Amino acid sequence: MQSSEKNNSAQFLEHQLQETITLLEKQQLETSLVERGPVANYELVEAMLQNQHQARLQEKFAHLHPADIAFILESLPLDQRKTAWDAIKTLHDGQVLLEVSDAVRHTLISGMEAEELATVAGKLNTDEIADIAADIPKRTMLKILRSLNSKERKHLNAILSYQENQVGALMDFGMITIRDDLNLKAIIAYIRKLGKLPSHTDKLFVVDQHDKVQGVLPLQRLLTHSPTQQVADVMVTDFIHFRIDQDAAEAARAFERYDLISAPVVDKKGKLQGRLCVDNILDFIREKTDEDLLTQAGVGEEEDLFSSVWKSARNRWGWLLINIATAFASTRIIGVFEDIILQLVALASLMPIIAAMGGNTGNQTSMLIIRSLALGQITPSNIRRLIKKELTLAVINGTFIGLIMGLLSLLLYQDSALSAVMATAMFINLLVAVVVGLGIPLLRHKFGKDPAVGTSVILTAITDSMGFFIFLGLASLFLIK
Amino acid sequence: MQSSEKNNSAQFLEHQLQETITLLEKQQLETSLVERGPVANYELVEAMLQNQHQARLQEKFAHLHPADIAFILESLPLDQRKTAWDAIKTLHDGQVLLEVSDAVRHTLISGMEAEELATVAGKLNTDEIADIAADIPKRTMLKILRSLNSKERKHLNAILSYQENQVGALMDFGMITIRDDLNLKAIIAYIRKLGKLPSHTDKLFVVDQHDKVQGVLPLQRLLTHSPTQQVADVMVTDFIHFRIDQDAAEAARAFERYDLISAPVVDKKGKLQGRLCVDNILDFIREKTDEDLLTQAGVGEEEDLFSSVWKSARNRWGWLLINIATAFASTRIIGVFEDIILQLVALASLMPIIAAMGGNTGNQTSMLIIRSLALGQITPSNIRRLIKKELTLAVINGTFIGLIMGLLSLLLYQDSALSAVMATAMFINLLVAVVVGLGIPLLRHKFGKDPAVGTSVILTAITDSMGFFIFLGLASLFLIK
Repeated sequence: MQSSEKNNSAQFLEHQLQETITLLEKQQLETSLVERGPVANYELVEAMLQNQHQARLQEKFAHLHPADIAFILESLPLDQRKTAWDAIKTLHDGQVLLEVSDAVRHTLISGMEAEELATVAGKLNTDEIADIAADIPKRTMLKILRSLNSKERKHLNAILSYQENQVGALMDFGMITIRDDLNLKAIIAYIRKLGKLPSHTDKLFVVDQHDKVQGVLPLQRLLTHSPTQQVADVMVTDFIHFRIDQDAAEAARAFERYDLISAPVVDKKGKLQGRLCVDNILDFIREKTDEDLLTQAGVGEEEDLFSSVWKSARNRWGWLLINIATAFASTRIIGVFEDIILQLVALASLMPIIAAMGGNTGNQTSMLIIRSLALGQITPSNIRRLIKKELTLAVINGTFIGLIMGLLSLLLYQDSALSAVMATAMFINLLVAVVVGLGIPLLRHKFGKDPAVGTSVILTAITDSMGFFIFLGLASLFLIK
Repeated sequence: MQSSEKNNSAQFLEHQLQETITLLEKQQLETSLVERGPVANYELVEAMLQNQHQARLQEKFAHLHPADIAFILESLPLDQRKTAWDAIKTLHDGQVLLEVSDAVRHTLISGMEAEELATVAGKLNTDEIADIAADIPKRTMLKILRSLNSKERKHLNAILSYQENQVGALMDFGMITIRDDLNLKAIIAYIRKLGKLPSHTDKLFVVDQHDKVQGVLPLQRLLTHSPTQQVADVMVTDFIHFRIDQDAAEAARAFERYDLISAPVVDKKGKLQGRLCVDNILDFIREKTDEDLLTQAGVGEEEDLFSSVWKSARNRWGWLLINIATAFASTRIIGVFEDIILQLVALASLMPIIAAMGGNTGNQTSMLIIRSLALGQITPSNIRRLIKKELTLAVINGTFIGLIMGLLSLLLYQDSALSAVMATAMFINLLVAVVVGLGIPLLRHKFGKDPAVGTSVILTAITDSMGFFIFLGLASLFLIK
C-alpha cells in the first residue's frame, strides 16, 4: 500500500512537472520575444519539485522581472502556486505582490505569516504599500506602519485617504523637485549626485519655498539648452497638472489627449503633493474597462482563474439571483394572459421575439450613452440633440423592424390581424427600449452613480415585461373575440 | 416675409450661440483644471458666428492644444462643426485631423478640397499620415505621396503594409540612433546640436553599422554616468524590443507589465525599423476595449454622436438583423410544441425563464474566458483544469438554481411534476450554456479569430433554442398524457 501511494504521488508530481514545463515553455516563448534571456526550464522545474532545493528555484526566479513571476503565479493552479511562492516570496522586495491581480494576491498573502508579510511589504514604497493595503490584515498593517518614518506615514495616509477613482489614489512620490534660481549645470550635477532617477522621470518639478509648483523642466530641455541658462528661463510654465481630489478618469483622458508621461499633483492651494505617471494611468484604464466588461456580463469582480469553485460561485451568484427575480417577475405578465394564449397559441411562439429585440436595441443605445459619458462627450448643451437623434432612430428602426416582423409572422401564420399586432407591438417596444436605454445611464450619471452598473439587467427586465405586456395586451384587445 | 425670415435666422444664430457658449464653458472648466489658460469664450463665439472674422477665431484656436480642438469639434453638432473647421483647418499642421475620432474625421475631410487636404495632411509625419490614410481619397493620397521624399515614402509603405493589430502599424520613426564607440560627452553634444528630441524619447537606440540594435541608452543613464564613459559600457543590453510583425496586443501587455515608455521595433534579422511608444499603446488599448464593449452590445463601430440618423441606423442594423434571424429561428422550436402548450399553458410563462437564465450564465462564462484569453492567461497546460472548474461550477449552479426554479414554480402552480421538469430543464440548460460559453471563444481563438466577436449573439441563440427545446421536450415526455 505504502509503495502504491508513493507511486501515485510520483505520478502526480510527474503530471505537475509536465504541466509546469508546458507553461514555462510558453512563458519562455514570450520572454524570448522580448529578449530577456532564456529560462532554464527543466532545472527550474526540478528545483521546484524538490523542496529542498528552494535556493536554486530562487536563483532562477531572481533573474525574472517581477511582472513575469506574477504572470507565472497567476497561470499556476493553487497547489503549484503555493510551492513556487513559498520559495520566492522574499525575492524582488515584494514587487511580485504588487504585480499580481487582486484575486491572486489574496491566495498568496493568506499563506504568509504576519511577520513575514510585514517584512516583505515593508520594502515597498509608500505608494506601493497603499496599492496592496486593502489585502493586508490589520495587525500586519500596524506592524508595517510602525516600521515607516513619519514622512512615509504621511505619504501613505495621503494616498489611503482618497478613493480609488481619485487622482490621489494613483499618485506616487518619485518626484525630483528643483528651484528656479539655479542654472542647468547645477541641475545636471545634482542629478549626477543622486545617481538614479525615479522611473518615468521625464521632467523635474520646479517649486518655490512654499512647495508651490512654478513650472516643469523636461529632461529634453535640460539636455538641449545651454548649461549656463537659468531654470527659470528654460522651464515650461504652461504645464499640465492635476488636483489631488480630481476624478481619475478625467486625468486618464488628459494623459491620452496630451500624451503625458508624468505630471505634478497639487492640492487646492497649488502645493505639490505627488506625481502621476502613465504606468499607473495604464493600469487604471485596464482595470476600469475590464470592470465594465465583466459588470456587463454579470460577473461581480475579477476572478482568480484557479480560485476555489465555491469562491467563483459566490462571485457570480449576485447577478444570477437578481436575474432569477427579474425573469420570474417579467414572466408573471405572461401568466396574466394565459387564457389569451390558450385561444391563440401562436402568441406563445412570437412573444419571446418582441422581448428579445427590445433588449438588443435598448442595449445598443445604453452602451453608446455609457461610452459617451465615459469619454466626457455628453454636455448639457448637446444632450437634447442627442436624445432627439436616438428617438428619431428608434422610430425608423421600429418601423422597419416592425414591418419585417409583421411580414415574417404573416408568412408563418397567414393571419393578417396577428401580423399587424406583431408589427405594432414591436414598434412600441423598440421605442420603450430606447427611452429606457437613454434614461437609465443618463439618470444614474446625473445622480453621481456609475452609469454602467446594472443598466443591462434593469433594461432587460423592463423590455421583457413591457414586450410581453404590449404584445399580449394588444392581442387581447384586437385578436380575441 | 423677408424680415420674419431674417428674424428666424437671427433666433437660430442666437440659439446656436447659446449652445456653443455652454459647451465652451464646460471645455473651459476642463482646460482651467489642467491650467492651460482661459479661453475668451464670448469673443470666440462672436467670431465664430461672423464668418468675416475667421482670423480672430483662428487666433483663439491657435492657443488650444489640437486634442482640445478635436474634443470641441466632436462635441459640436454637424453645422457648427463645419463652421468651426472651415476657420481652423490649416492650423496646427493637420494635428487636429489626427486627434479626432474616425467617424468625425470623415465629416471633416468630406468638406475639404483635394488640394487643401493634401497641403494639410502633407505637414504630418509619415506615421501620422498612415494613421489617417484610410480616410483620405485616393487622388488626394497620390498628391501627398508625390510630396514625400523617398525615405518618407518607404516609411509610409512600411507602416501601411501591416495590419492594425500588428506592431508595425503602431510604430513611429522618431528615434535617435547612436553608436556604441562614442563617449557620453559626445552624445550630449550631439543632442544639444539636434536642439530637440522627439516626444517620448526616454532612451536612445544603440545600433551597429548594419542598423542592428545593440542596446539602449536611457536618458537616465546618460545623465547619471560620467561623461567620459563609453556608450558601450553604460548602455543596457538586456532590453525589451518588439518584432515588426508581432501582435500589437502582446506588445501592449509588455508595455503594461514592464512599464515601458518607448522600445525599438526590429525586423526578423534584428535591424531597427522604428519605435513603439506608450502614447500609441494607450490609444490602441482604448480603441480595442471600446470596440469590445460596443461589439458586445451589437454596435458595429464607433459612431459620431452627431452623424446622420441614417448612418447610425446602418451601423446598428447588422446585428439587429442577425438578432431577428436568430430570434425567429429559436422560437420556431416553440411552434413545434404548440399543442403541448395548449394542454398546459403554464409552460408558456415558464419557458422564457429557462432561456434567459441559460443566456446569463453562458455569458458570464464566455466573458471570463474572453478576458483571460486577452490577458494571455490561458495556456495549453492549464486549460483542462479550467474547463473542469467551469463544469463543476455549472453543476453546482445548475443544482441550486434548478432547485430555486422548481420551488418558485411549485409555489406558483402547485404542480410537483411541472416543478420537477422546470428544475431538470434549468439544470440541463445551464450545463449547455457553460459548455457553449467555454466552447465558442476557445474554438474561435484556436482558429485565430477574435474570441469576442459574435460570441454573445451565437451563445444566446443556442441557449434560447436549447432552453425551449429541453423544457418543452421534457414537458411533452413527462407531463402530457
